[in-house]
Amino acid sequence: MAGKRDLILRAAVAVIARSGVRGLRVEEVAAEAGASTGLIYYHFKDRAGLLSATLDHVNDRAERYTTRALPDTGDARVLLEQSLLLELQDVDEVRENSLAWGELRASAVFEPELRDRLTGATGTWVAEIAELVAAAAPAAPADDVAERLTALVEGLSERWLSGTLPLVRARDLLLGAITAELGS
Amino acid sequence: MAGKRDLILRAAVAVIARSGVRGLRVEEVAAEAGASTGLIYYHFKDRAGLLSATLDHVNDRAERYTTRALPDTGDARVLLEQSLLLELQDVDEVRENSLAWGELRASAVFEPELRDRLTGATGTWVAEIAELVAAAAPAAPADDVAERLTALVEGLSERWLSGTLPLVRARDLLLGAITAELGS
Repeated sequence: MAGKRDLILRAAVAVIARSGVRGLRVEEVAAEAGASTGLIYYHFKDRAGLLSATLDHVNDRAERYTTRALPDTGDARVLLEQSLLLELQDVDEVRENSLAWGELRASAVFEPELRDRLTGATGTWVAEIAELVAAAAPAAPADDVAERLTALVEGLSERWLSGTLPLVRARDLLLGAITAELGS
Repeated sequence: MAGKRDLILRAAVAVIARSGVRGLRVEEVAAEAGASTGLIYYHFKDRAGLLSATLDHVNDRAERYTTRALPDTGDARVLLEQSLLLELQDVDEVRENSLAWGELRASAVFEPELRDRLTGATGTWVAEIAELVAAAAPAAPADDVAERLTALVEGLSERWLSGTLPLVRARDLLLGAITAELGS
């Protein structure tokens, strides 16, 4: 049954990346997953439960292609750069995951449960980046810098995903922001 | 008839801010505007035409509460700060406009006409900010800084609108970014 749960969550990410959260129906996720709506309710209780679990799933996936894909180095500056650049990759999984993240964020204002979860997830991400900032540049205001760099990644990511900013330019701009915030 | 056209566009912004672009039906905008769908097709030809005109309308509104609301000063740094800070105001019009902008951006990947328009509008905004950056700090790479600061505004704005970042903190972070990019 664990396999089926994961399959449902992957289906939910795909449906959200394709058509957003606002009009999301559990039936659509069931069809995408090749599962019954009953099984979805069994695992996630209701639509809100499914959305919360999907947000966690999106986070776990992002963790996999960023934090856990970092180069084997003790250079905090390199780790910081790579950790953020890995959010901007021309890879189907990253593109789908980032689209779903943007959609979940945009709908959080209408879904209180999602909002708390999103605040928590964003806070965890900011704290991880702040640690790398502090290690790379002890004099920098790590929390502020980390909150700005992660918000910038989201802003650049949405421009890239909307087809209005080339990926290579987005990555260059991000590296420039790190230099501006940390000093060369 | 000009008044009715404007009324339809304001209705479209309200509907998009509330329920997004993906499932937007012309009938819904007609109902919100108290107009017939026939009148909408008369003014905008089709759904794509309505979306393009709505994007322009969102831009005109943003122009009104930012560029045209700037303080009467020759201090380029103050103008730059205010121009960006005015995007982050606890005012219904700004909130609705920013929600609609985010939704239009998110759906641009699926709507080619919208994408070209969005690229143009973003480019105009970046160019305006780049001019202020160049005046405030002649040594700064104005185009890069402007593209970063506007993308950061979008990222911070979405966090604010989703209820996960207090407005006062978003504004502080933005001022900090200007300082980091331009030097104190």
